[in-house]
Amino acid sequence: MKYFDHNATTPLDENARHAWLKASSESWANPSSPHRMGAKVRMRLEAVRGEISQALGIEPDELIFCSSATEAINAWVRAYCSQSDPRPLLVSRQEHAAVIESVDAHSQGNVIYFSPHVDDLPKHLEPLIEQHQAGGVMLMAANNETGEIYPWQEVANVCNRKGIPYFCDTTQWIGKMPLGKLNQLASFCGSAHKFGGPKGVGFFKISRRFFEVKLSHGGSQEHGLRAGTEDYPAIAAMAAAFQEYGNVNAETVSEQLKFRDEWMAKLQQKMSDVLLHVTHHQVLWNTVSVAMPEKEAHYWLSKLEKAGFTVGLGAACATGKSGVSHVLNDLGVDDAIIRRTIRISGGVDTTDQDWWDLLDALEKIHTEMISQDSSGSKTEVIRI
Amino acid sequence: MKYFDHNATTPLDENARHAWLKASSESWANPSSPHRMGAKVRMRLEAVRGEISQALGIEPDELIFCSSATEAINAWVRAYCSQSDPRPLLVSRQEHAAVIESVDAHSQGNVIYFSPHVDDLPKHLEPLIEQHQAGGVMLMAANNETGEIYPWQEVANVCNRKGIPYFCDTTQWIGKMPLGKLNQLASFCGSAHKFGGPKGVGFFKISRRFFEVKLSHGGSQEHGLRAGTEDYPAIAAMAAAFQEYGNVNAETVSEQLKFRDEWMAKLQQKMSDVLLHVTHHQVLWNTVSVAMPEKEAHYWLSKLEKAGFTVGLGAACATGKSGVSHVLNDLGVDDAIIRRTIRISGGVDTTDQDWWDLLDALEKIHTEMISQDSSGSKTEVIRI
Repeated sequence: MKYFDHNATTPLDENARHAWLKASSESWANPSSPHRMGAKVRMRLEAVRGEISQALGIEPDELIFCSSATEAINAWVRAYCSQSDPRPLLVSRQEHAAVIESVDAHSQGNVIYFSPHVDDLPKHLEPLIEQHQAGGVMLMAANNETGEIYPWQEVANVCNRKGIPYFCDTTQWIGKMPLGKLNQLASFCGSAHKFGGPKGVGFFKISRRFFEVKLSHGGSQEHGLRAGTEDYPAIAAMAAAFQEYGNVNAETVSEQLKFRDEWMAKLQQKMSDVLLHVTHHQVLWNTVSVAMPEKEAHYWLSKLEKAGFTVGLGAACATGKSGVSHVLNDLGVDDAIIRRTIRISGGVDTTDQDWWDLLDALEKIHTEMISQDSSGSKTEVIRI
Repeated sequence: MKYFDHNATTPLDENARHAWLKASSESWANPSSPHRMGAKVRMRLEAVRGEISQALGIEPDELIFCSSATEAINAWVRAYCSQSDPRPLLVSRQEHAAVIESVDAHSQGNVIYFSPHVDDLPKHLEPLIEQHQAGGVMLMAANNETGEIYPWQEVANVCNRKGIPYFCDTTQWIGKMPLGKLNQLASFCGSAHKFGGPKGVGFFKISRRFFEVKLSHGGSQEHGLRAGTEDYPAIAAMAAAFQEYGNVNAETVSEQLKFRDEWMAKLQQKMSDVLLHVTHHQVLWNTVSVAMPEKEAHYWLSKLEKAGFTVGLGAACATGKSGVSHVLNDLGVDDAIIRRTIRISGGVDTTDQDWWDLLDALEKIHTEMISQDSSGSKTEVIRI
């Protein structure tokens, strides 16, 4: 089975697996224990914190290990909303459900949602912040569904100038793009299983400049900000994956982007009735969000599976809910077209040949569908 | 190194390791993904939920997988305190820091602390609940520091009769004692790394009768109560450890208790100046909390390490804080004696011979200490 759903999760990297096994055998003691076995694990844990924070360009005491990006996001939103008399929070409508549902649960309506689907977003945000006397901004680095890249560096500059905290969900960025100026973000988070690490572990850059973010109470672990025994084996495995995939050089990205554009052009050439989303913005090199012709997404998923390809649809997390992507909705895409949208997301190990094989499979399914479709009607093509 | 700090954490069981490896290789897809790879993991995840909930005697939809007991405790306390106009919470003074610090962070002082160190605690609690119009009770099943077992079954009966929620932290119970009537508890939690499973994963029995407990927002995972990609490999590993160690039969416990009493008698016989804590209550078979003669605990830890034995002191989580156990404090033990207290906690694989070897080592260190101690003064012995 060729796997094209890396935005949902990635297979475990071999080095990460080895690191977990080694740590589980040799470093399983509780790092908070007062004996040497514990102290040894504590030392290793802090060494890993040093390595990752250095790569990110931040201080070790700004880096918190946690169980997931979702945990980090929930904690940040809870902390923001727990300030006495917080100013309104500016939140992108295209954020992950972890952001939107946390904000809805904690903000008591003290939130301004904005669409990031505008020209020159940073310039658009500045007056919005002033107009609403906003006290913080949430805008992700790259979208999990469409792969769209938002101008987070400029937004960080705006927020830093205004002296307000910016939480940037960098879950989809890390492992696909150069780390670049992430360190200029007040707060951001990563999830190991999006870049070849194990599930159940992530990290969180915490800024103490604005308010205290406490993930859990009950012990002095993680600079006193997240109580609970540290999962050193998973953290060591995350570090191994991070070392391999956590950063990506700009040259690789530009090569991959060139290839992806070529692939999309071929897709459109072979199937003129597909609709590619957000092609006019910067998009992650690995992601293609595309509305397929005529049939709903599940039809294509099922046919592709039979042909040996696994692709996704929208956000894995939204499955079982309304089923209609709020992200594509915000882009102005019709519900009917959203229902035909599949998400193709490759990984660092996906080869060009894998992509071409996928294209052949799509074309074959398409041809069969048309020949079976007695009406032969062609779906309307809408460009956004 | 012979390891006697199982209350802090346990080594990873071989079956758990294999289960993790197998799941990481074969079942790493995102269980929320809409494709077959995801659905297969979802099925396996729900099968594991079925197995564990059946063993616990609860319904699958009452069982939430989470990252730790600390997470469960924090979420329960937050939810209790978020009720509109909650009645006071009755909390044992000997709870783990995860309980006490969560309560202090969220209750705004709307809490009544009680000492469980009384005769006939359930009878003592009933009028306390009435007097304070308490709306909930927190009392752990067994103490991590002293091993003391509290009458949680009777307290569950009292709370059920009064119609108020009882949260019982069963972290130290599960894997050491028969599961028994845990299912009569409104809410309880377990941590895999206390019974041979991996770190970073646990479970939480949620009661929906009283108020909704939401661990995190942002997806429909875990019955909509805990958003975030489920860590199936860790959950599968926890299930393997739970199958092996999660329950313990009563006969084994009574044999182990007999052995431990014999061991403690020998310890006192050989070193009359030790002080055993909470011997007059029911205590976990694996735990010996003992104040050593003359020197502070770190002296004994260090000497024991040189002799090849790792023991603990108080709670692993409290290390680096005041250093004086709030649990022993509540038992009325003097600070000076608390500072001499070590915690010896064996595991299911600790042999009788390991225990006798430890006793020999203690005796040897003791003899050397006395011979080096020119004053030869004997420490005052206090029984509690």
